[in-house]
Amino acid sequence: MAGLPLEQGLFGRLRRDAGEAWTRYVRHPFVLALGAGSLSRPAFQHFLRQDYLFLIHFARAYALAGFKSDTLADLRAAASAVSAIVDVEMPLHVSYCRDWGLSEEQMAAEAEAMETMAYTRFVLERGLAGDRLDLDVALAPCVVGYGEAVERLLADPATVRQGNPYAAWMDAYASDEYRAVAVAAIDNLDRQFARRGGEARYPALLATFVAATRLEEAFWEMGWRVR
Amino acid sequence: MAGLPLEQGLFGRLRRDAGEAWTRYVRHPFVLALGAGSLSRPAFQHFLRQDYLFLIHFARAYALAGFKSDTLADLRAAASAVSAIVDVEMPLHVSYCRDWGLSEEQMAAEAEAMETMAYTRFVLERGLAGDRLDLDVALAPCVVGYGEAVERLLADPATVRQGNPYAAWMDAYASDEYRAVAVAAIDNLDRQFARRGGEARYPALLATFVAATRLEEAFWEMGWRVR
Amino acid sequence: MAGLPLEQGLFGRLRRDAGEAWTRYVRHPFVLALGAGSLSRPAFQHFLRQDYLFLIHFARAYALAGFKSDTLADLRAAASAVSAIVDVEMPLHVSYCRDWGLSEEQMAAEAEAMETMAYTRFVLERGLAGDRLDLDVALAPCVVGYGEAVERLLADPATVRQGNPYAAWMDAYASDEYRAVAVAAIDNLDRQFARRGGEARYPALLATFVAATRLEEAFWEMGWRVR
Amino acid sequence: MAGLPLEQGLFGRLRRDAGEAWTRYVRHPFVLALGAGSLSRPAFQHFLRQDYLFLIHFARAYALAGFKSDTLADLRAAASAVSAIVDVEMPLHVSYCRDWGLSEEQMAAEAEAMETMAYTRFVLERGLAGDRLDLDVALAPCVVGYGEAVERLLADPATVRQGNPYAAWMDAYASDEYRAVAVAAIDNLDRQFARRGGEARYPALLATFVAATRLEEAFWEMGWRVR
Repeated sequence: MAGLPLEQGLFGRLRRDAGEAWTRYVRHPFVLALGAGSLSRPAFQHFLRQDYLFLIHFARAYALAGFKSDTLADLRAAASAVSAIVDVEMPLHVSYCRDWGLSEEQMAAEAEAMETMAYTRFVLERGLAGDRLDLDVALAPCVVGYGEAVERLLADPATVRQGNPYAAWMDAYASDEYRAVAVAAIDNLDRQFARRGGEARYPALLATFVAATRLEEAFWEMGWRVR
Repeated sequence: MAGLPLEQGLFGRLRRDAGEAWTRYVRHPFVLALGAGSLSRPAFQHFLRQDYLFLIHFARAYALAGFKSDTLADLRAAASAVSAIVDVEMPLHVSYCRDWGLSEEQMAAEAEAMETMAYTRFVLERGLAGDRLDLDVALAPCVVGYGEAVERLLADPATVRQGNPYAAWMDAYASDEYRAVAVAAIDNLDRQFARRGGEARYPALLATFVAATRLEEAFWEMGWRVR
Repeated sequence: MAGLPLEQGLFGRLRRDAGEAWTRYVRHPFVLALGAGSLSRPAFQHFLRQDYLFLIHFARAYALAGFKSDTLADLRAAASAVSAIVDVEMPLHVSYCRDWGLSEEQMAAEAEAMETMAYTRFVLERGLAGDRLDLDVALAPCVVGYGEAVERLLADPATVRQGNPYAAWMDAYASDEYRAVAVAAIDNLDRQFARRGGEARYPALLATFVAATRLEEAFWEMGWRVR
Repeated sequence: MAGLPLEQGLFGRLRRDAGEAWTRYVRHPFVLALGAGSLSRPAFQHFLRQDYLFLIHFARAYALAGFKSDTLADLRAAASAVSAIVDVEMPLHVSYCRDWGLSEEQMAAEAEAMETMAYTRFVLERGLAGDRLDLDVALAPCVVGYGEAVERLLADPATVRQGNPYAAWMDAYASDEYRAVAVAAIDNLDRQFARRGGEARYPALLATFVAATRLEEAFWEMGWRVR
């Protein structure tokens, strides 16, 4: 399987210019411990519970992208992203969490952590204050970053597969299905930038990308602190 | 097949209180001529072209409803409404229009009539200025009204089935599939009103419903003027 | 007094490329009849009533621009535009309408015409689906167009000042205060385009500008039909 | 001077039902240390810098309230709130910060803390996903809470006035001007609830109020951690 096209177009440029902030996110100690199988069960469970709440707002963000679409093709892509999250990813997440002793009722009743609120509301507000391109740039660190984090784990000799309780989680983000989602997000950024971009917008887009990257880092840090 | 539950709950009350405005919409001369098979071909084609543009904004309105959802169930329902429009209804519409000599490229390039703009932007703006209930009330006259208009046509002795060039159009809105959509919209209004309503909101909701009904009437009037 | 800088920057380009649509708007028969003093009293009164409703949504559009501002300077400018409309322009409008026999209560209770809805909701929705630049482009035909329309009337030998019942209305849009507002709108477009623009966005911005221009033309046509 | 009407109407009910969360916010150690004059200079400076960024988004939230207004009176009130923040409160804040060695340029360039992002984006997103009432409830803990916090400090024997470097800060929030703003916010909630409320909405409104209160507590905690 080929790696993700992480150097491609607008995404590649944003990722490069985010520099250390990007590396701190995709190589966060939480992720490394997950790869090594040494992450504590409570830390992972806390992360799973917040990720459930996160996914709801993430689906809402793609719904918002649907509203903000300029073309029928964009609207269709956004609609299928929402469906993929609420009809496929969330049921998988719920079924996976059940194996970790978490029921959907518990997760739905969980208090939302400040880290979850900060990132999700930042993305949604960016999308409402700005345009579709601003929204898509704010969404990109999540969609692509999870793919890259797991890709790097799988290439890392410190990663343990045998007996690692988090192997199934890694497999999900290394799957062809997830890879296709991440590639589509990278391609979409180029399409949106070609249509609504311009060099003058780049500094503000980079600021959005870096802020979202930091909020993602904080999301993993939240799980890490539980250990 | 049972009739639509047009007297039910909030929808029933709004429809009753809209009075003449509602009747002028669902019994518009354009609709009656369609039932009688006497509508001119150019009038119907004009309507179909604008309806294509209308559907895009209508799908965007459901995407917006997804963003504005308070519960995962509401978000799922909105997401499946968007998919139903862009993945099922629009391809059907496009294929149907081809039989009337209209290609998708033509329809996409058509100038948007003021009537199309007025109704679609009214709905979207209501949804953004207000909440999910305001949005759903603005959407209801379209979703349920088309069902009622055709239900009344089919019960009307003046309606012609044999050799009526518009029979397939009537069948689409009389189908079990469409009926289920209209019933879901009526049920949803009761659910939203139970959660976000209150008697104090009723006058403003009625004003929204009546405005949307008038804009739907104007949409058919637009087709009617072409004859 | 110097004329408005109608050829300047982004506005100048949009206005040129709008071509006939722009001329049909700023030289609409309603405007010419107003300049000649031959416009009927009911036509003008209808226009004034709808303009009252229009101004409320226009102020809301500037409030929205405040929310969508990227800089404190932009936010301040938007806030002062809202205040200028609700605290200065609307009281003036109300006092002026009183001379024409229209009370504020009457105007507030007036049914909103489809033309008023179409333009105002188009602007607001553009601002929510797009970014600040999309919103400002949608607002420009109104702000600058009224200035140009009156500037051209005052330079037109067919315009009558002596005994023209609409002289005070023309004076308002020819005033230094209004001119400053129109110049600020032209300057702002250049500032927003420098920050959020790019050649790739131009076709969509032009489509927005032309649509708004046509909806403005329809607004005057609405008054004209009353005669 | 009479105390704030903290028991009044919807605000009183939300405040009572928020219980401990409300007390933890208005009696936060940061506030008590400020009253005692024992707060460290770096802690206060950090707070002032973030408060500058906070105020910009707060003004944007009132601009959003202007867009979401159903009546001209509501729109006027929102517009004057935006002007009060950007034209009066921010210049005062800037001038006050200068005495603490902070220039406006420094504050504008400051990295936004996660606590600042979390609260401000939560408020803005509530306002866009919900209606004007949802937005106003999310804003209330800030507007009224600062007034109550200082009112309680001034009634607290542990508070030091003589030689307290934070005396001017307390005076600002104890002023008649600020009191009028807080009273108007309390009155406004009753007005909005009368128009758009209903008992069924109360649980969701309380959830918004409590979330906003916790995010305000976190904002002060952020300053407190600097010490």
